[in-house]
Amino acid sequence: MQRYFIDQAYQPTVEVSGEAHHHMSRVMRMSVDDQVFLVFKDQTAVKAKITAIDSDKVVLEEIEKESLQRELPIQITIASGFPKGEKLELIVQKGTELGAHDFIAFPGESSVAKWDAKKQKKKQQRLNKIAQEAAEQSHRQALPVVNFASEKELIARFSEYDAVLIAYEESAKQGEQAQLVQTFQQLSAGQKLLAVFGPEGGLTPKEIESFQAAGAKLCGLGPRILRTETAPFYLLSTASFYYELQR
Amino acid sequence: MQRYFIDQAYQPTVEVSGEAHHHMSRVMRMSVDDQVFLVFKDQTAVKAKITAIDSDKVVLEEIEKESLQRELPIQITIASGFPKGEKLELIVQKGTELGAHDFIAFPGESSVAKWDAKKQKKKQQRLNKIAQEAAEQSHRQALPVVNFASEKELIARFSEYDAVLIAYEESAKQGEQAQLVQTFQQLSAGQKLLAVFGPEGGLTPKEIESFQAAGAKLCGLGPRILRTETAPFYLLSTASFYYELQR
Repeated sequence: MQRYFIDQAYQPTVEVSGEAHHHMSRVMRMSVDDQVFLVFKDQTAVKAKITAIDSDKVVLEEIEKESLQRELPIQITIASGFPKGEKLELIVQKGTELGAHDFIAFPGESSVAKWDAKKQKKKQQRLNKIAQEAAEQSHRQALPVVNFASEKELIARFSEYDAVLIAYEESAKQGEQAQLVQTFQQLSAGQKLLAVFGPEGGLTPKEIESFQAAGAKLCGLGPRILRTETAPFYLLSTASFYYELQR
Repeated sequence: MQRYFIDQAYQPTVEVSGEAHHHMSRVMRMSVDDQVFLVFKDQTAVKAKITAIDSDKVVLEEIEKESLQRELPIQITIASGFPKGEKLELIVQKGTELGAHDFIAFPGESSVAKWDAKKQKKKQQRLNKIAQEAAEQSHRQALPVVNFASEKELIARFSEYDAVLIAYEESAKQGEQAQLVQTFQQLSAGQKLLAVFGPEGGLTPKEIESFQAAGAKLCGLGPRILRTETAPFYLLSTASFYYELQR
């Protein structure tokens, strides 16, 4: 069943226009009595049926609330140093499926990719579109957003989080295996985790130093060396396992 | 440091020719005293240095054994119903980084992709090449292989495994959350797990039935609906977390 994120507060009867209207009426050729999932801004998710449809709007009525909790109990922000090519698209798509709360892309010191303001804006729009599609497809109840920040801005935000982890290749090489479990043990429902991943070339010692000075902890993600786009998948999957399957 | 899988039994001094020789001498322009990692067929991994190099061969001598265990304690086979496009390449690349022991690709009933024998052989070569590159890059001590099988052949192999799990979208939708943890609890080091994933269209009720009749268990991978290529990453990451970080 199709799923739509609606940019309105929850109401049992709702009028939908714009893109969602277009998708229901034109792309899916839906008609009265067809059912969809709607997710409102406050994360209320309902099963709804179409009660009226015309060329401007669709009117839908709630059948029942979605009972299953689909959001990770802790909010995880994935911060990625600009990687090459289309890797950010892959991180945002898969990261959204795997439950990321939101994403921050930042220019790492060893990032090869350089995007000017215009290109960055276009990229951001594209990434937010990818996040929305992945959120619909994976039945999310919250819509992740993708923001861009400088490294200075990223560090300034550390204080908003209950924990900040740096996925560090050298930690993996040296067999650091305790930090991730410890962090999960410390964080409980409603708390916020920021996980920072370097670009392909890794984080520089200077970056590591300023992250640590701002309170971040270095963290290994198992004994194998993961590519920059694979490491966030590992972290998100393991958070789901710990908070959603083992609890 | 570069890593090479050597198709020979372990020896402290070893002579290397063929592709690895080409890569060391031509691509990396290495010379005497340069160091590399070598992984032998029996999974012995050593740090070695070049003692001689000419146009036909490289001679290397062991410096020390690699101390860190980099292979998952249980062997996980990822069986994927032929997905569309380049998704199998993504599954094999990331699955290798995340520790898969090997891969089986099979034509699922709802697979759109159809490959004739010739195309399949080419695809298999390409996938094995991707697995090798990912194994070198992620510092694996075992080289995953990619095989193709019919569904009948796949089911016939179920008995070789200590457990067989079917990642099933309906299980996720219904909130099944116990089976994965239970399976990990039951399997101990050295045992073998086969995890079966359908193509984009999912597994058909008939397929599910024959898999279950052959002993497979249905399994949810958290409350979000994962794409066919994302689900194996979840399973492998959580196995690493359970066996390598929590133990």
